[in-house]
Amino acid sequence: MKKITDKILTKVIRQRPADSFKGTYGKVALVGGSQNFGGAIIMASLAAVYSGAGLVTTVSDSTNQTSLHDWLPEAMFVDNNQFEMAEPILSAATVIVIGPGLGTDEKARTLLERTFALAKPGQVLVIDGSALTLLANSKLTLPSGPLNVLTPHQMEWQRVSGIKIADQTPEANLAVANQLNAIAVIKSHRTQVCLNNQVYENTGGTPAQATGGMGDTLAGMIGGFTAQFADKPAAVLAAVYAHSAIADQLAKKQYVVLPHQISESLPEFMHAHQAN
Amino acid sequence: MKKITDKILTKVIRQRPADSFKGTYGKVALVGGSQNFGGAIIMASLAAVYSGAGLVTTVSDSTNQTSLHDWLPEAMFVDNNQFEMAEPILSAATVIVIGPGLGTDEKARTLLERTFALAKPGQVLVIDGSALTLLANSKLTLPSGPLNVLTPHQMEWQRVSGIKIADQTPEANLAVANQLNAIAVIKSHRTQVCLNNQVYENTGGTPAQATGGMGDTLAGMIGGFTAQFADKPAAVLAAVYAHSAIADQLAKKQYVVLPHQISESLPEFMHAHQAN
Amino acid sequence: MKKITDKILTKVIRQRPADSFKGTYGKVALVGGSQNFGGAIIMASLAAVYSGAGLVTTVSDSTNQTSLHDWLPEAMFVDNNQFEMAEPILSAATVIVIGPGLGTDEKARTLLERTFALAKPGQVLVIDGSALTLLANSKLTLPSGPLNVLTPHQMEWQRVSGIKIADQTPEANLAVANQLNAIAVIKSHRTQVCLNNQVYENTGGTPAQATGGMGDTLAGMIGGFTAQFADKPAAVLAAVYAHSAIADQLAKKQYVVLPHQISESLPEFMHAHQAN
Amino acid sequence: MKKITDKILTKVIRQRPADSFKGTYGKVALVGGSQNFGGAIIMASLAAVYSGAGLVTTVSDSTNQTSLHDWLPEAMFVDNNQFEMAEPILSAATVIVIGPGLGTDEKARTLLERTFALAKPGQVLVIDGSALTLLANSKLTLPSGPLNVLTPHQMEWQRVSGIKIADQTPEANLAVANQLNAIAVIKSHRTQVCLNNQVYENTGGTPAQATGGMGDTLAGMIGGFTAQFADKPAAVLAAVYAHSAIADQLAKKQYVVLPHQISESLPEFMHAHQAN
Repeated sequence: MKKITDKILTKVIRQRPADSFKGTYGKVALVGGSQNFGGAIIMASLAAVYSGAGLVTTVSDSTNQTSLHDWLPEAMFVDNNQFEMAEPILSAATVIVIGPGLGTDEKARTLLERTFALAKPGQVLVIDGSALTLLANSKLTLPSGPLNVLTPHQMEWQRVSGIKIADQTPEANLAVANQLNAIAVIKSHRTQVCLNNQVYENTGGTPAQATGGMGDTLAGMIGGFTAQFADKPAAVLAAVYAHSAIADQLAKKQYVVLPHQISESLPEFMHAHQAN
Repeated sequence: MKKITDKILTKVIRQRPADSFKGTYGKVALVGGSQNFGGAIIMASLAAVYSGAGLVTTVSDSTNQTSLHDWLPEAMFVDNNQFEMAEPILSAATVIVIGPGLGTDEKARTLLERTFALAKPGQVLVIDGSALTLLANSKLTLPSGPLNVLTPHQMEWQRVSGIKIADQTPEANLAVANQLNAIAVIKSHRTQVCLNNQVYENTGGTPAQATGGMGDTLAGMIGGFTAQFADKPAAVLAAVYAHSAIADQLAKKQYVVLPHQISESLPEFMHAHQAN
Repeated sequence: MKKITDKILTKVIRQRPADSFKGTYGKVALVGGSQNFGGAIIMASLAAVYSGAGLVTTVSDSTNQTSLHDWLPEAMFVDNNQFEMAEPILSAATVIVIGPGLGTDEKARTLLERTFALAKPGQVLVIDGSALTLLANSKLTLPSGPLNVLTPHQMEWQRVSGIKIADQTPEANLAVANQLNAIAVIKSHRTQVCLNNQVYENTGGTPAQATGGMGDTLAGMIGGFTAQFADKPAAVLAAVYAHSAIADQLAKKQYVVLPHQISESLPEFMHAHQAN
Repeated sequence: MKKITDKILTKVIRQRPADSFKGTYGKVALVGGSQNFGGAIIMASLAAVYSGAGLVTTVSDSTNQTSLHDWLPEAMFVDNNQFEMAEPILSAATVIVIGPGLGTDEKARTLLERTFALAKPGQVLVIDGSALTLLANSKLTLPSGPLNVLTPHQMEWQRVSGIKIADQTPEANLAVANQLNAIAVIKSHRTQVCLNNQVYENTGGTPAQATGGMGDTLAGMIGGFTAQFADKPAAVLAAVYAHSAIADQLAKKQYVVLPHQISESLPEFMHAHQAN
C-alpha cells in the first residue's frame, strides 16, 4: 500500500489565483439531514464551506433550516420536501454529497434515487453514511456518469461490498472498488483509500476523533476539496489526510476532538499547507 | 468519609487506545427538556459529548431540536412525542440520563415510566432533576436492572429519601442509598457520593458555580464518563471531581461560572488529567 | 450631584460565601420580547445570567424560545401566551424585569398589567423600554408593593415624567422620581440615577455604546445585581457603573461595542472588582 | 481611474462625538432573505450592526427570525409577509438595503416594488443581489428620490447595464451609472466604483474572499457606513476598501475568509483606522 502523507497537501492545495471568483471554487450541493440527524448535514456543510468551496447549498428536512444558518449563514438551504427546487442546483453542482444524516426510510430512499438519476459526467458524487446503507439494502446501482466516491466505515463497507470486516484486505477491497468503478474511502483507525487501482493508507488519525460526526465532516471536506481542485482523486486523498492531521494537532491538547472543530480549523490549516 | 481528590482523574481517565472507534466510547441517550426547560437537556447533552462519549442522542420536546443542534450538531435528536423511535436507542444505550428539564407533568411521568421499563442490566441509568421529584412523588420504584445513579441536590434528596436536609448525615444518606441499591450523588457545597457502602466527599467546588444548569451539566458528565470508562462507580467519582475542578479553575478569573463553560473546558481538562 | 465611580463596585460586589447555592443569588424573571423585538429580551436575559443571578426565567413570545436557548441554555422559558404558567414564577421572583422588546400593543399592555398586579413588597421591579412607553400612555400606576426601578432614556423619561428633555434638570428629575416613589435611571451620555432623594451621575460611558440593545443589557444587569446583592439601591448604581466601565474597556480597541459583549465580559469584570 | 486606498478610511471614519446616542448613527433597514437564502440577509445585517449603525431592522421571511437573532440579538425583525409593519420602519430609515437573499419570485418582486415606492430623498438605497436581477428583468425603474447605490458583480452588472462583461470598461460603466444617476459598485477582483462622474478602483482584495456571502456582507457594510457618516459617496468607498482590507488581513493566515468573519472584525478594524 502507498502511504498518504503531508506531501499530498502541497500537491493539491494550490495557491489561489489572484483573478478568481467564487465560481472558480466550485459548487457543492449536500443532501441529507432528516429530523433526527440534522446535525450530520450541518457538520458536512460546515466542512464544505470552511474548506473553501465557492458556493454551498444544503438540501435537508425543513426543521434543519434554522440550525444550518445558525452555524453557517454562508450556505443556502432547500427543503427536501421541495426537491424539484433542488434539482437544478444538483444539476449545476460541481460536487454532490449525499448521505450525512439522510436516514434510511422511504423518503430517504426516494431522495437517493432522484439524486442518482441526476448525477452526471463531470460531477463528483460523494456517497456517505445512510446513503451507503440504502445502497447496500436496495437494488440501486451507482450512477455511471459521475466520479463516485464512497466513504463507508468498515461496517458500511461490509454492507456495500459484501466483504466481512475481518476479510477487508487491501486486495479484496480494491477488487470491489474496481468492480464498482468507484473511489472507496474505507474509514478506520488507519483509513484506506482505493483509487486508480491502488490502495492508499492514511498515516494520520487519533482515537480522540472517535466520536459521532467525524465521518460527516470528512464527507463534507471531500466535497469541498474536489469542488476546488482539478485532480479529483488527489483531492480525495488530501481531504482524508487533512482531516486526520487537523485532529492530530487538536489532540495534542484535547482528550476528544469535536468534528466541528476540525472544520473551523480548515482555513488556517490549508493556508499553512498550500503549494508554494 | 473518604475524600475525592485529583487522584481519581488519572485513575479513571485512561489514555485512549490507538485502535478504537466511536463504539468504544459508548452510547449515551438523554431524556429531558420540556418546552420550558429545554436548556437543561442541552447542557446535559453538551457535557456528554464534550466528555467524549462516542454517540449521543437527545430525546426531548420537538421545540428543542433546533437549539440542541445550534449547540451540538454532534448529537442526534428524537422528538419525545415519538417515543417509540427512542425506545430502540434507549435499549442500545450504554448509559441513559433522564431528568434534566423533564418537568413533572403527566407527559414527563409517562416518559419516566417508559424509560424505567426499558432500562436493563449492563446499563447505567442516571436519574436527575425533575425525574427525582417525580420519583419521590409517585409510586414508581427504581428499575432493578441497571446501575442506578441518583444526582439530587439536598432538597431533592429530602424528597427521595425522606431525610430532612438538617438530618442528611453521611450515615443516614448511606443507609437510604444502600436500601435503594443506588449510587447517590448528593449535591451541595461539598458534594457527597454514596457508593459501594462508602460515603465520599468531594474536595472541589466554588460558589461561582451557584447558578442554574450546573446540575444538568454534572448529570451529562456522569453520563459521558460512565459510557467510556470501565469502572462505573469510579467514573461517577471522577465526573463529580472534574466538574468542580474545572469550575475552580474558571473561578480564578470569573465571578460566576456558566455551566456550558464547564463542558467546553472538558476536552483540555481531560487531556491534562489522563493516565500516563 | 454625587458621582458614581468604581468605588461602588467593591462596595456592592461581595465575595461569594463558600457555603452558598443558587438560591442565595436570587431569581430573576424577565418579561418581554415580542415577535419583532425578541433580541431585546435575549440581551436582557444574558445580562442577568452573566452577572450571576441564581436562576433566570424568560417570559416571551413563543417564537423566541429557540434563540433564547441558543444564547443561553441556562435560562428557563415560558411562552407569554401561557402567562398563567409565568405567574407563580413571577410571584416567587426576587426581581422582575419587564419591558425589553415587549412592544406596545394590546397584548403587551395586558402583560404589563398582569405583572404589575403580581409584583409585591420585597421584590424589585425593573421597568424598561416599551413598558415605560405603555406606562406613560396608559392610566396604569406603578404598583405600590415592590421597589420600582425605571430605566428610561431621555425621551422615555419625558413621556413618563412629563418633563421635556431640555428641562430634565437633576432637581426636576428628582422631584418626579420622589413623587413616583421609584428609582429612576435616566440614560444618556452621562446617566443620572435618582434614588434616596439624591441624584447620582455616572462617570463612565463611551459613544461606542451608542447602538441598539445597550439599554436592554443594562436592565438585565440591574436585574442580576439587585437579585444578588442586599443593598438594592447600591446594586442599581453598581450595575449602571459596571455597564459603562466594561464598555469603556472594550472601546479601547473597538469602534462600536456590541451589547452582548458587555454581558459576556461580566464574569471577569466582576471578579476583578469584587470586595476584598 | 482613481485608486481607493487606506486614506479613505481616516477620511470617513470619524471619532465618535462624546455626546451622542444611537440615533446619531442612523437607522438601517434591510429587506431580503427568502426561505432558501436566509443566510444572505443575516450576513448583511451582521455587517450593518458590526460597522456601528445605531439601529438595525431586518425584514425577512418568517423562517429566518430565529437564525437572525442567534447571530444578532441586536437587530429587530419584521416578517416580510407583514410588510405593512415594515413600511413605517423603511420610511424612517437612514438607509435601506434591499436584495441579499431576496430571491426573484413574485413575492420578491412585490417587496422590491413596495420598497422602491417608499424610498425617498435623504435616504440611501442600496440595491444588491437578486434585487439587481429583478431590476434588470422587470420594467422597474430606480426610484428618483434616494441616493441609489447598486452593488452588482460583473454578471449582475451585465444584466442591469446591458454591457457584456468583456466590454465593461470604466468609461462604459460610468456612462451607464451616470445615466442611472446611481453609484455603481461593480464587484470583481479589483472592484470599481462609479460615483460623482469618476471611476474608482479598489486596491485591496484577495482570492481568499471568493466564497458565497461576501457580497451580502459588503452590502450591509455600505448600509452601516452610509448610515453613520455624513459624506455618503465617501462612505461607500470606505466600506468597499474596509471590506477588502479586512479580508487581506485575515488571508494572511487563512486559505479562505468567511464573510461573517469580516463583520466580526469590523469593530477593531474601524477603531484602528478612525480619524485622529
